[in-house]
Amino acid sequence: MYKKLDEKDFKKLREIFGKENVFVGNEIAEEYSKDEMGMIQAYPEARVLAEDKYQISKLMEYASLMKFPVTVRGAGTGLVGACVPTKGGVLLDMTKMNKIIELDKENTVLVVEPGVMLLDIAEYVEKEGLFYAPDPGEKTATIGGNISHNAGGMRAIKYGVTGDWIRGLEVVLADGTIMKTGGKVVKNSTGYPLKQLFIGTEGTLGIIVEATLKLTSLPKFSASLLVPFETTKEAVKAAPELLLRHVTPTALEYFDETSIKYSSEFLGKSIPHNDYKAYLLLSYDGTNQAALNHDIEVASQICLDLGALDVYLIDTQERKKSIWDVRGAFLEAIKASTTEMDEIDVVLPRTHIVDYLAFAREVSKDVGLRMPYFGHVGDGNLHIYFCRDDLEREVFLERLDKAFDIMYDKAFSYGGLVSGEHGIGAAKKKYMYRLLEGKPIELMKGIKKVFDPLNILNPDKVL
Amino acid sequence: MYKKLDEKDFKKLREIFGKENVFVGNEIAEEYSKDEMGMIQAYPEARVLAEDKYQISKLMEYASLMKFPVTVRGAGTGLVGACVPTKGGVLLDMTKMNKIIELDKENTVLVVEPGVMLLDIAEYVEKEGLFYAPDPGEKTATIGGNISHNAGGMRAIKYGVTGDWIRGLEVVLADGTIMKTGGKVVKNSTGYPLKQLFIGTEGTLGIIVEATLKLTSLPKFSASLLVPFETTKEAVKAAPELLLRHVTPTALEYFDETSIKYSSEFLGKSIPHNDYKAYLLLSYDGTNQAALNHDIEVASQICLDLGALDVYLIDTQERKKSIWDVRGAFLEAIKASTTEMDEIDVVLPRTHIVDYLAFAREVSKDVGLRMPYFGHVGDGNLHIYFCRDDLEREVFLERLDKAFDIMYDKAFSYGGLVSGEHGIGAAKKKYMYRLLEGKPIELMKGIKKVFDPLNILNPDKVL
Repeated sequence: MYKKLDEKDFKKLREIFGKENVFVGNEIAEEYSKDEMGMIQAYPEARVLAEDKYQISKLMEYASLMKFPVTVRGAGTGLVGACVPTKGGVLLDMTKMNKIIELDKENTVLVVEPGVMLLDIAEYVEKEGLFYAPDPGEKTATIGGNISHNAGGMRAIKYGVTGDWIRGLEVVLADGTIMKTGGKVVKNSTGYPLKQLFIGTEGTLGIIVEATLKLTSLPKFSASLLVPFETTKEAVKAAPELLLRHVTPTALEYFDETSIKYSSEFLGKSIPHNDYKAYLLLSYDGTNQAALNHDIEVASQICLDLGALDVYLIDTQERKKSIWDVRGAFLEAIKASTTEMDEIDVVLPRTHIVDYLAFAREVSKDVGLRMPYFGHVGDGNLHIYFCRDDLEREVFLERLDKAFDIMYDKAFSYGGLVSGEHGIGAAKKKYMYRLLEGKPIELMKGIKKVFDPLNILNPDKVL
Repeated sequence: MYKKLDEKDFKKLREIFGKENVFVGNEIAEEYSKDEMGMIQAYPEARVLAEDKYQISKLMEYASLMKFPVTVRGAGTGLVGACVPTKGGVLLDMTKMNKIIELDKENTVLVVEPGVMLLDIAEYVEKEGLFYAPDPGEKTATIGGNISHNAGGMRAIKYGVTGDWIRGLEVVLADGTIMKTGGKVVKNSTGYPLKQLFIGTEGTLGIIVEATLKLTSLPKFSASLLVPFETTKEAVKAAPELLLRHVTPTALEYFDETSIKYSSEFLGKSIPHNDYKAYLLLSYDGTNQAALNHDIEVASQICLDLGALDVYLIDTQERKKSIWDVRGAFLEAIKASTTEMDEIDVVLPRTHIVDYLAFAREVSKDVGLRMPYFGHVGDGNLHIYFCRDDLEREVFLERLDKAFDIMYDKAFSYGGLVSGEHGIGAAKKKYMYRLLEGKPIELMKGIKKVFDPLNILNPDKVL
């Protein structure tokens, strides 16, 4: 149904992008056939590196004419195969479009190209005393990828997710039209929310070529609390109580001894006070030390009231780095602990997390898969991993399928959703269809058809 | 093109809603032919009061079959004619669906019917130590109306707009399907953002029948600063500097002596320290007095550095009430000062507000219309009024048209948009089309067709 690319098409791509930016056949390295998770694999017919939006506009005009698919790729740090060109065609690599275009301090926005990495944004704005709050774990992800998945991260509980920090977008549509939506303005009730439709839709409705990010003043003071509990249950149950009784922390993470063990083995270093079973990790930030001290004191007392075994203040740069490095390495550490893995990224009403994690431990035994987990417990967003270890691949895939089925159905029964922040991509479509079959899927398909009638923008993803 | 309602249809409506909830012909009071602004007027063929979502589902099934339009109305406090049934048909009055369904403290959400008033929500949650942050000026508006316009209000600068506080929605679609989107969960990357498409779209894509609102813990301490400046220019220029140098205030409002004069005349009371030309009104909130004091001190010093003539602390209940009552009455006071009026609700990058207000004063003289204004200067969202006073209606409308044209074109040249929070409705369509003609309008029309192929949901609005 899609046109297979031939020499004439490659020639056209070289005209648009320059010879040095077009790769075909054996020139395409294996990494471009998969993402960080690696469970979905497919090679594109050509990989092109874009340098500006006009090239992308020309590409889409040509792709519309010829009817071949275009899949956008940032740093490839996704986990659901969204950037894998499962239908072939062109893989549009955005990593060269990595310029910071403008810091507009008076309007407190940063205008960037989509290929800028998260860590570069943080460095750039923080030295100016400004703050881009979203903080997904993977700092080498591109901002374009973050927007396309509406990435959440550690600070979402206080500051919201990526989509909450996008003031404006410039996109290239399926037919090559370059369109702006939103801008440097703070509010907008001007017609239908088109900007929102490019956030979290994984490049299936348009290609983000520029983003205007909201900034705020950098909180000058911050500290973390490492709070051990006797059991997972007690730790997780404390989270909603904390939120109810006191100010919202910057982060509210859960992890257990297993995650620490993997991370310590992987990084060759551990956290301080590492001899407990279950932990909450809290952060608070503020504009002055007195206010921060007050929040820390109140939070500590509440934790102790809720059964915490102790409360450790993590307030030096060194201690903060040690603990957040370990927390940040969980995904990679679990990956390094096994031969192959997959994950679910369910989001639940916070009240059901205790039961859901207990259920997960049962499923792990019943199905026969090692299932380590951790999570943004303040957001009700859990990351549960399914490790192959030394199972035969076929056995692993069979058990994985079974475990996914059981775990998603349980999540849905609690009012949970398929994904809190990692998206649907190719890997989670089946479960999204199960949850949203009927009208929601029908409406989504209708929207897709409006934006991409030829189904050439990242086909086979989300829908 | 639409079916005119006849006796058979009225009978059906009485079957669905009960005799006491259906009004036709002369039974329909004048107030149901217009909104708060009153510039757009049209009577429905029937007004029905809904008591539950199943009635609304049946209504839409029947309206789809017969092809007559349905326009949703909350408290009628809108300003752009969005709830005026310009194409006749049924006016669906939601004010009886005003129950608070559930306060779920652990998940910190409040589940409500759409007809609940803002002031009832505030009262209900604040006595539980919880906080629904959006704070539009009109407290007797319904939450359904707020969501349908993505209302902003005084605290948007710190806490965001209505849409940022909506966790989940239940809607009735054009064909009568009842659909849930979102839920009690905090994050969601599960497919296309359907929930967003019912926020700010003025009842043109679906009818909101239940909303799950995000809550947070109530900030226990707050204070305001009333900060007079020599000129509008100095006051407005200080706003972005304040935001850049310090923590974001809860509110950052601008007004001048004229607004105070109208408000004082209207309410019969004035603000303290009322003998200056231009003011900023700042608020700060916090979890403890020490932190609040710190913010107040830093903000005061910055204001003085930026040329403020003085800084008045407004920290008693009495002083707070006096000043916020006056601020809250601006719209009604200006309305009471004239015979008829209209307004624009532009949102601009903050940096252009000084120039835009200077431009407005010129336009007022050139066109010959009194044009008082005030605004959420921290958000770049201005409310500028065009007063008829004792002009002939025809002359007023002619000048209004001219002034709108000039003012919108200027706003667009600054990267501004038609509406920051009041919406498009029937009144501002022309200007939205001017700004977004081409692809954006085409995409919006495509979305409308997906959700409402018969164009029976609030037709003639937005698009």
